[in-house]
Amino acid sequence: MRHRNLLLALLLFPLTALATEVKSPNGNVALNFKVEAGRPVYSVTYKGKDVIRPSHLGLELAKDKHASMGMDERDLMDDFSLDKEVTSTFDETWEPVWGETKYIRNHYNEYTATLSQHWLTAPPKSNNGVRRQPRQHRRTILIRFRVYDDGIGFRYEFPQQPELNYFLIKEERSEFALTGDHKAWWLPGDYDTQEYETRTSRLSEISNFWDEIIAEGKGHASRTPFSKTGVQTSLQMKTDDGLYINIHEAACADYATMHLNLEIGNKKGEPSYTFVSWLTPDATGLKGCMQTPCETPWRTVMVSDDARDMLSNNLILNLNEPCQIEDTSWIHPTKYCGVWWEMIVGKSSWNYTDEFPSIKLDAIDWNAVKPNGRHGANNEKVKRYIDFAAANGLQQVLVEGWNVGWEDWANKWKRDVFDFVTPYPDFDIKMLNDYAHSKGIKLLMHHETSSSTQNYERHLNDAFDLMKKYGYDAVKTGYVGDIIPRGDHHYSQSMNNHYLYVVKEAAKRHIMVNAHEATRPTGLCRTWPNMVGNESARGGENEAFYTNHPDHTCILPFTRLQGGPMDYTPGVLETDLSTWSDNPHQVGSTLVGQLALYVTMYSPLQMAADLPENYAKYMDAFQFIRDVACDWDDSKYLEAEPGDYITVARKAKGTDNWFVGGKCDENGHQTNLKLDFLDEGVRYACTIYADAKNAHWQGNAKAYTITKKTVKKGDVLKLREAPGGGFAISLIKR
Amino acid sequence: MRHRNLLLALLLFPLTALATEVKSPNGNVALNFKVEAGRPVYSVTYKGKDVIRPSHLGLELAKDKHASMGMDERDLMDDFSLDKEVTSTFDETWEPVWGETKYIRNHYNEYTATLSQHWLTAPPKSNNGVRRQPRQHRRTILIRFRVYDDGIGFRYEFPQQPELNYFLIKEERSEFALTGDHKAWWLPGDYDTQEYETRTSRLSEISNFWDEIIAEGKGHASRTPFSKTGVQTSLQMKTDDGLYINIHEAACADYATMHLNLEIGNKKGEPSYTFVSWLTPDATGLKGCMQTPCETPWRTVMVSDDARDMLSNNLILNLNEPCQIEDTSWIHPTKYCGVWWEMIVGKSSWNYTDEFPSIKLDAIDWNAVKPNGRHGANNEKVKRYIDFAAANGLQQVLVEGWNVGWEDWANKWKRDVFDFVTPYPDFDIKMLNDYAHSKGIKLLMHHETSSSTQNYERHLNDAFDLMKKYGYDAVKTGYVGDIIPRGDHHYSQSMNNHYLYVVKEAAKRHIMVNAHEATRPTGLCRTWPNMVGNESARGGENEAFYTNHPDHTCILPFTRLQGGPMDYTPGVLETDLSTWSDNPHQVGSTLVGQLALYVTMYSPLQMAADLPENYAKYMDAFQFIRDVACDWDDSKYLEAEPGDYITVARKAKGTDNWFVGGKCDENGHQTNLKLDFLDEGVRYACTIYADAKNAHWQGNAKAYTITKKTVKKGDVLKLREAPGGGFAISLIKR
Repeated sequence: MRHRNLLLALLLFPLTALATEVKSPNGNVALNFKVEAGRPVYSVTYKGKDVIRPSHLGLELAKDKHASMGMDERDLMDDFSLDKEVTSTFDETWEPVWGETKYIRNHYNEYTATLSQHWLTAPPKSNNGVRRQPRQHRRTILIRFRVYDDGIGFRYEFPQQPELNYFLIKEERSEFALTGDHKAWWLPGDYDTQEYETRTSRLSEISNFWDEIIAEGKGHASRTPFSKTGVQTSLQMKTDDGLYINIHEAACADYATMHLNLEIGNKKGEPSYTFVSWLTPDATGLKGCMQTPCETPWRTVMVSDDARDMLSNNLILNLNEPCQIEDTSWIHPTKYCGVWWEMIVGKSSWNYTDEFPSIKLDAIDWNAVKPNGRHGANNEKVKRYIDFAAANGLQQVLVEGWNVGWEDWANKWKRDVFDFVTPYPDFDIKMLNDYAHSKGIKLLMHHETSSSTQNYERHLNDAFDLMKKYGYDAVKTGYVGDIIPRGDHHYSQSMNNHYLYVVKEAAKRHIMVNAHEATRPTGLCRTWPNMVGNESARGGENEAFYTNHPDHTCILPFTRLQGGPMDYTPGVLETDLSTWSDNPHQVGSTLVGQLALYVTMYSPLQMAADLPENYAKYMDAFQFIRDVACDWDDSKYLEAEPGDYITVARKAKGTDNWFVGGKCDENGHQTNLKLDFLDEGVRYACTIYADAKNAHWQGNAKAYTITKKTVKKGDVLKLREAPGGGFAISLIKR
Repeated sequence: MRHRNLLLALLLFPLTALATEVKSPNGNVALNFKVEAGRPVYSVTYKGKDVIRPSHLGLELAKDKHASMGMDERDLMDDFSLDKEVTSTFDETWEPVWGETKYIRNHYNEYTATLSQHWLTAPPKSNNGVRRQPRQHRRTILIRFRVYDDGIGFRYEFPQQPELNYFLIKEERSEFALTGDHKAWWLPGDYDTQEYETRTSRLSEISNFWDEIIAEGKGHASRTPFSKTGVQTSLQMKTDDGLYINIHEAACADYATMHLNLEIGNKKGEPSYTFVSWLTPDATGLKGCMQTPCETPWRTVMVSDDARDMLSNNLILNLNEPCQIEDTSWIHPTKYCGVWWEMIVGKSSWNYTDEFPSIKLDAIDWNAVKPNGRHGANNEKVKRYIDFAAANGLQQVLVEGWNVGWEDWANKWKRDVFDFVTPYPDFDIKMLNDYAHSKGIKLLMHHETSSSTQNYERHLNDAFDLMKKYGYDAVKTGYVGDIIPRGDHHYSQSMNNHYLYVVKEAAKRHIMVNAHEATRPTGLCRTWPNMVGNESARGGENEAFYTNHPDHTCILPFTRLQGGPMDYTPGVLETDLSTWSDNPHQVGSTLVGQLALYVTMYSPLQMAADLPENYAKYMDAFQFIRDVACDWDDSKYLEAEPGDYITVARKAKGTDNWFVGGKCDENGHQTNLKLDFLDEGVRYACTIYADAKNAHWQGNAKAYTITKKTVKKGDVLKLREAPGGGFAISLIKR
């Protein structure tokens, strides 16, 4: 803050204290912005009610040792004057490559404030007695708001300019001042993982529950919680007077992922609940290296008095840039199965041998090692999965553990952990791909990076070449364990750049990417639709470790799914893992609840996660997984309450068929499903997969009924969802 | 140090306090080793005189948060018992791909000590009343010594074993206890640069001079000194009784570069001078991530009572692994010129435009920007350099600044700084390579990475493809500025891995590498002879910034060149830069001194650094640069004293011709050169390039004489080297 000259600013640029109001197209949402005492302040209302109370915006900068950066050390926090205001309207309808609806309308009013800082520095020393003038400085940033009917987005923009070419971010200080002690569905803030169970509590209770949640997550391969009042986005909240508010971000590409830190009580000691942005640092603690022209991601606040709007909302996709891939014909939604769940459950292994306490890839003769006899990805088994996929309308087969290196991988600080091109001796890559192709199936590649990102980037070209050689068109990547190089985090600027680098390199080669343990999505799949999936939350796999609580899948669509689809891996119909393995866990839903997820958890990538032999026990129920689409022309959210229940009807892409899913928490749910969304005058063959009367996620999860009837528009179906259950309906045009 | 159970170790394994002595083949050097009070101790004598007094060996380990590493937190420092001792002899003569001599003899006696640590941990808790036994642990390391007639090398070896699979190095603690307050030629220890002027002082004076040297180095683009008693290797010393001692390392590949930190005085307050190893850390402060089986680099102590042995010594090359490249036919020594010195001096620019305060590569239409009119690497100029090379027996032309990105590069924390494939509009890459090839010349590629190593690795494949497409077979790389990712250092384990990664990738494509600002060499060029050069010290370019003091090139062969050749870029015959530029500096040698460097500073890569128009002024002197070889069948060091003078005669590869160079410091030097090394009965056409009588590096640097005569074996030439001067002689068989 040296060199500040507030007086000068006051004299030259009178501070604007009058707020500007910008309303959304239908007027429900209003943004207010002003510069007060040199600081940018915004607030948001919904139908006249406060949503975000006056909140400051700004960034703290870090000083750099390099004079060549030409940085002034002052922050981008205060001493601002408002130079210019521009408002405009935008209304466009665009067609996603895949999605919940055929078209998406992007309609907003925009407001951009141009802000400047002015200061003087001491005059250069005079050596001839002439008095010199102080040097005048000026720096400009923009804050751009887009006001939608269901929320707002804003971002900081930094034009290229003589006094701001490069800068380092110490912390972004975007505030979100809330109106009260709202109910919140939150995850503890963490630089490395989102795989916690969501906690539901008042804001004021976050720090009370924090220790408990952190203790529960001790098994995570990589985690770095940072504050007892830190939470992740997307953060879903509900006010006592029934407003639903969600804070997240959009288009986070070459920037650190944002968390939120709660500050309770203001300086005067009055009660207040303000979240402040908290970015993910690099290994040195710094939070961003920027070069102008550039901008931050969008910070988003979605709001409605109807919870269903939280789910049908396209604000985050709309704030992302249009598709950057010219030819998208090779991108396709996919249903797949895979050699995977049996390893997760512990019945077979990723690794091929147990002979060595540790391995180095180039020192092993793989054909000479002693197999452990438990290796999952073997020729015989993969062929069985290919047969299963071909017989059941699935398109791809994921095979994990096909490549050498699984003997010792995550968290050994082992850089050269995988080479991504050498199969184990019992995985005949040519034969298996040929066999799959002969049945119309593709194998789905797997690249576990073990978070050794430099190693992955070094091998990326060869790894993709191998995929193209054998006909793979999609890869599931994994980032288990702490990041190598040491000190970096999963959600840092450099890692976010890495994930997108892989997506872009893959796009060049017409490869789709599904990244697990990567950063939480922020709608970048609009721009790069070959990014067909992500994990970035506690997925179905956790049923084998912790059991996912029944409310989990009634929360995820409000939180994790806001930024993009999740490869949740549903469809575990054998909910009692002990029936076929030594794993004692029970799935946290009924069997029918697992079917419902294919509709309630939107994703263009849907796995049939269970084993073929388990599906064989429930072939009538499995029929729904065979039938259900994974790309849609329309979606109607019929009922929703975060953590309680979600009911949604979707129209399968390019057809007149609908699929309806309902999922509820541990309390069960009753619904009168009005078939208003069907076409007039058409009759549909309706198959209803429902929990049996005595079904219960604990103890009687596999009790279900299947009912077939013919229905038409306007009919009403009375449906009862068991505790932890749901329903699934297919409606096929006759 | 928890869980230590010294008593147990004492009971099970009586400590060995008797030292083992191992002598070098001729008996001059003797190594003593023992385990004393659980700690490994070694000492070294030369002809019965102490060189290294009893010194401890060991490593401190860092604890890791990951239980999966299976680490015990105890250090590898003490509680050792000596399990086994093995001695052996080795004698082999090998032929380097290029070098100072046609054959190199590798003759040593080896001693290996196997050391183990044993400890107990508490028994598992009993739940049935039965007393359980404590758990016994055992860990083994080896220390291997090789004893040569001119020094020793030792390293730590870590076999794969159940209790030591992975470990993290907090610090290596290898001691070098010296016998007194020796004279030393030292550089301040620094994690990022070696480009300091060498200081000559007593060991006790290091900390006194440290501030001065650091202040002088303020202009370095990247530097991180770490201790006022820290120095770099190779460290040359001289004892008061005339022993020359040099400490360095060999074969530093996937390990952090070692510095030395001086500890003066022991715990009892007695005078002592002990250097302790001090490794380069990563961004988190950690100094190594290791997986067994593995070993450290060799730590080397060279010793002789004849300074010439310090230069003819091949100990460091011998301690490296044999050549790993099967077909080396494409590797060749090279004399080159280049579009380079004029940018260093400031007459022209690397960048093409001054239009923008900063640039982003993908946002610029290079054909539309306004040229600054000073761009060095333009078609016309490059063609002139090609013509010059073709006319003067040079093989290659380096062109720096040919590719886009030089508008803003180092120390902006700008990751995507260069793409290594896009030429500026005035550099026609196809035309220029075609033109060069038509004259039998190759262009020499330049890749300035700006230390953004991730960016370089991402582009490496495309960059090498471009080189092969246009016929380049060598690349000069550069690492100016702080390392990106932020927090890493030029000499860390990860960066050392990076440099070698580039060399290996280049070798696959038959590309030679000459890396500037990379880590100091440790003889890896034996294993990877496509690594034909490095900078890693203050090179000739510094004449344009600081002037290199005349003693500089009389020190470098004793220090920097121990690990491998230096691309020093000699041959600046126009020693007064102001004659053709605005640069006020004078070169720190006479014109003839510049000629001498082609012989005294061995390198398979020798630049004729000056501009063609400057050489045109001194074509008779330039004849020596045209004639001199850069690969040798034999080398005879005739006179040497660190910092004072060096005289060497070399026999050009595959010929009977000799070249002799003499270089001295600011005091001048007289030599009676006995031509004993010539073949009996042969007459040689001898051309002597000598300083004129009144020549002086300051004020009269360009005064020289050229004398031609016929000589034979046994003749004596009386030669006078001016202050800061030298001489150069060619002896061509008639």
